[in-house]
Formats: sequence, C-alpha cells, structure tokens
Amino acid sequence: MYEEFKPTDPGFAQRVRDSFDKQGVMGHIGATLGEVRPGYCEIVLPYSDAVSQQHGFFHGGVVGTIADSAGGYAAYSLMGAEDGVLTVEFKLNLMAPADGEELIARGYVVRPGKTLTVSRADVVVVKNGQPTACAALQQTLMRVADRSDVIG
Amino acid sequence: MYEEFKPTDPGFAQRVRDSFDKQGVMGHIGATLGEVRPGYCEIVLPYSDAVSQQHGFFHGGVVGTIADSAGGYAAYSLMGAEDGVLTVEFKLNLMAPADGEELIARGYVVRPGKTLTVSRADVVVVKNGQPTACAALQQTLMRVADRSDVIG
Amino acid sequence: MYEEFKPTDPGFAQRVRDSFDKQGVMGHIGATLGEVRPGYCEIVLPYSDAVSQQHGFFHGGVVGTIADSAGGYAAYSLMGAEDGVLTVEFKLNLMAPADGEELIARGYVVRPGKTLTVSRADVVVVKNGQPTACAALQQTLMRVADRSDVIG
Amino acid sequence: MYEEFKPTDPGFAQRVRDSFDKQGVMGHIGATLGEVRPGYCEIVLPYSDAVSQQHGFFHGGVVGTIADSAGGYAAYSLMGAEDGVLTVEFKLNLMAPADGEELIARGYVVRPGKTLTVSRADVVVVKNGQPTACAALQQTLMRVADRSDVIG
Repeated sequence: MYEEFKPTDPGFAQRVRDSFDKQGVMGHIGATLGEVRPGYCEIVLPYSDAVSQQHGFFHGGVVGTIADSAGGYAAYSLMGAEDGVLTVEFKLNLMAPADGEELIARGYVVRPGKTLTVSRADVVVVKNGQPTACAALQQTLMRVADRSDVIG
Repeated sequence: MYEEFKPTDPGFAQRVRDSFDKQGVMGHIGATLGEVRPGYCEIVLPYSDAVSQQHGFFHGGVVGTIADSAGGYAAYSLMGAEDGVLTVEFKLNLMAPADGEELIARGYVVRPGKTLTVSRADVVVVKNGQPTACAALQQTLMRVADRSDVIG
Repeated sequence: MYEEFKPTDPGFAQRVRDSFDKQGVMGHIGATLGEVRPGYCEIVLPYSDAVSQQHGFFHGGVVGTIADSAGGYAAYSLMGAEDGVLTVEFKLNLMAPADGEELIARGYVVRPGKTLTVSRADVVVVKNGQPTACAALQQTLMRVADRSDVIG
Repeated sequence: MYEEFKPTDPGFAQRVRDSFDKQGVMGHIGATLGEVRPGYCEIVLPYSDAVSQQHGFFHGGVVGTIADSAGGYAAYSLMGAEDGVLTVEFKLNLMAPADGEELIARGYVVRPGKTLTVSRADVVVVKNGQPTACAALQQTLMRVADRSDVIG
C-alpha cells in the first residue's frame, strides 16, 4: 500500500522511538507508537476525557495532533542520524465523527526531499473493533540539518 | 482589522462560552476564552508540560487545536441558537517556534454561509511580554442545523 | 492501489466525459480525459506555451487546475445522474519542477459522502518517457443535488 | 489592512513586473498586474472563454492560478534582486461562484522568512461593478537564493 524507501540512518526506528518518548504532549494524552518502517509511522491513541470534545468523541485538534506526528515521524525516519525535523504546515480533513475507543494514525512519505518532505496520514477510529476512516492529512516537513534536538 | 458581522442569535457570546466550557480537551490543557464578538473569537493558552514538544515549546498539534477552535467558534458565533458546527477541514502553517509563556489564537470569519463558513485564525506566542506571529490557519466549517449538541 | 467503489449512476463514465467536454478551460489548454472508473479519474495534458511558466516548465496553477479537475471528476463519478459537484477547497503540494512533455493527474476518492466528498490527486510529469511525481492534492467537494448543470 | 514591509531590493516593483511578463500562462489567459507594493501584489483577469468552466463562470483552477501568482509575487517583492521563488504549496477555498466580468486577486505576505515565506490572497469577482469575495488562499513560498531565473 505504501511506497518502500531506503533509510539513510540504519538506526532510524530507535531514533523515532527516542524522540517520541520525549514529547510531553504525546505521553500526556496517552498516545503510543505502533509500527515504524522507513517512510512510515503509526501512532495509537486510546479514548479518554483528556482528548474529548463536547459530544464525547475525540477532539478534532487531537486527531490533527496525532496525524501531524505520524506524518512527521514518517518523514523523520528517512532523515540522517543528526537531523531534526519541523512541520512547515499541514492540512487535515475531518471526514467522520471520531467516535470510538481508539484512534490509529498511519503516516507515510509521499516524496522525500533534501530540504522539504511531503507526507500524508490516514486516521481511522476503531469502535467495537471496527475501523472507520475519519481523517486525512497532507503535510510539508522541513529537515533541519545537524540539529537532532529539533523536533516539532 | 476584522470584518464586522451581524449575529443571528443575540445570545451568541454566552452560547460560545457554554460550549467552550463543555470541551474536555480545552479545560484539560488549560485554555481559556478571551474576547468573543460576532465572527470573532480569541483563545488563550498558558505554557505547561501538557502542551509541550521535545524542545520545550508549544507542540504544533496544540497550536493547531486552539487555532481550529478559535476559527470554529468565530463561525459558530454567527450561527443560530439551535445550530451545531463541525470542522470540515483546516490548513495550518507553523511559521516560527511557539517559544513563550502564552499562546493567543484569534479566529475570524472570512465568509459566512448557510451551509459552509470559511474562517482564518492568527496565532501569536508571547515571550517576555512580546508577541510573535507563529501560526496561520485557514479552515472550512459546516453548520449542522438544529443540532446545538454537535460541536467539533 | 485505489479503493474500489460502486457507482450510483451506471452511466457515470459518459456523464464525466460529457461534462469534461463542456469545460472551456480544459479544451483551451489541451487537456484530455484518460481512464475513468468509479471514484477515479485521469487527466492528461501535453506541454505547450499556453501552460508554461517563465522557465519553460508547466505553471503551478495549471498543475493545480488539472489536479483539481481529476479529483473533482473522481468524486463526480460516484454521484447521481442528476447531481452537480463543486470544489469547496483544495490543497496542493508542488514537489518537483513540472519539467517534461506531459502531465498526468490521477484523482481518486478517499471518502465519499452524502454532502461532502474528500478526494486526493497525484500528478506526475513525464520527461523522455520517465514519470516523476511532481504534485499532490487533497480536496473537498460538495454534491449539489439535482443540479447536473453545476460543475466547478 | 495589510502589514507594511520594507523591501530588500529597491527595484522590487520592476523586478516583479519583468517576471510577470515572462509567464506564458498569464499572458495567455489575459491576466495583468495591478498594484505592487512591498509584500503586496494585485492581479486582474477579465472574463473570457479561455478561463471558463461549463457554467460560464471563471474556472476554479484559474482562480487558483491567479491567487497563487498574487501571493507568490507578494513574497517575491520582499526577496533580493538575485533571488528566485517557488510555490511549495497552497490551499484555496472557493467560497462563491466566480460569476462576473473580472477577477481581482490581492496577495499579501503574512510572514516573510529567510527560506520560507507564508502569504495569503483574497480574490473578488466583480459583476456589474460590484465585488464579491469568491476565494481565499494560504500558501508557502520558498526563496531560491541567487537563482533569479527560477519563478514558479
């Protein structure tokens, strides 16, 4: 389903996990990393009051947060061991109520670049075990050379 | 600076505040409502670990969450007393590190519509009292007629 | 590669072709329809001065025009025989110079809806027979019930 | 209404006009440059068959093309005499039918940057002398240092 890429840094998966663990907001809302491959990253978020909107669904901003992170880490997985990454911009379609017990965001690189990388992410909400596509993201990421401390 | 609109519902400001208070995620991250006018809404967010990324700045997803809410409530302020509102999609540019003690998102309606409304939001980060423009959003909202319980 | 959908209108392909033929701008720039399937539409554009920018590549606005049309007709292919369709908004990443003899835009539906449909389009530029991904689009379309004359 | 910027290159206005004149697609569809100020650029397009969609309105792709160019030249006006500029991506909301005798796109810089600049553009359609807001754009531009030949 997703294009195969060759990683620059063989330690990419551990580098993604280390960076993810340092993000305050991810731990705070209870998000965890799923599968990480070259140019691909999955983030899983269980439902809680901390991520809800008024109606008891996942908040759109939270959906955007994990979609942005999934696409960003997909891009980051293809970068060098000493690189950082910044989200330049993203666009998110909220296509169905995020009504369920779990969100899964799958981010993947559309085109990697020396400076700018384009990613997409697909988000499904799982209710009683059944997934429904609820959001679609397209984003632009910037590589920050030799600044492995910069992730955002 | 922002266009003036005439509200449909004279009780629009209280309606916006009541809805905001019911959003779990807004209270959870410590966001509060500022000024609310017809077609305009301000949201303020102080810095905390709950909203940080790895580098100690506000997380991009959090910036998007309050920008989305500010633009959404700007649109909602022009809707009828019994209406709900949904974010169809938004696009967010992250223009500078959100490095500071406070974020302020100012959402405003560009064009209200019977079904779809287009809003923009400008986000500044305040550091040592000095504001810096750090994000710009453009979004599409949908009015949900006679479903005042639907906000997202 | 693309999700399979069941068309509402069995005459969808002819309906898409008839509508395409009536678009002044498509004929004017020399664009033609390629494959049309339920939820999928291809548009092909040969290079000419009429679609160039200063450097002799395809103009970014032209790339957006055919990507928008490809995603829009993909959505339209799933609608009813009497429906019209409008582009609510689109977001386009220009990922590489559109340098070549031909552009091909492939539009496909991500999620069809009663009112709003989300599509994506991938654009490649072909140079000396070799395709390069040069643009990616994500867009929102609106069905206009019983207004088959409305396409835009 | 628009922020005031100080140009880097005092010859910015002539540089914008020279570049605009070299764009095949702009002349081809009949677009002309209006006012050019530091961080601001206006493009005017009269109606013709070459820019129409099926219903006799301006085609959405054409609206996007001139909005993209207006925002791009607004960014370019703040760059150096030897710089080029590329559109990284743009997002366009089509808010009303572009039904009229003339389109006017007003592009303006939201935040200039060393590498990336964020612009917005507002498009009005003029019918019987009355303007109606019909489109809103937000975009990301990249400065290409010392490549004044690169515009797109």
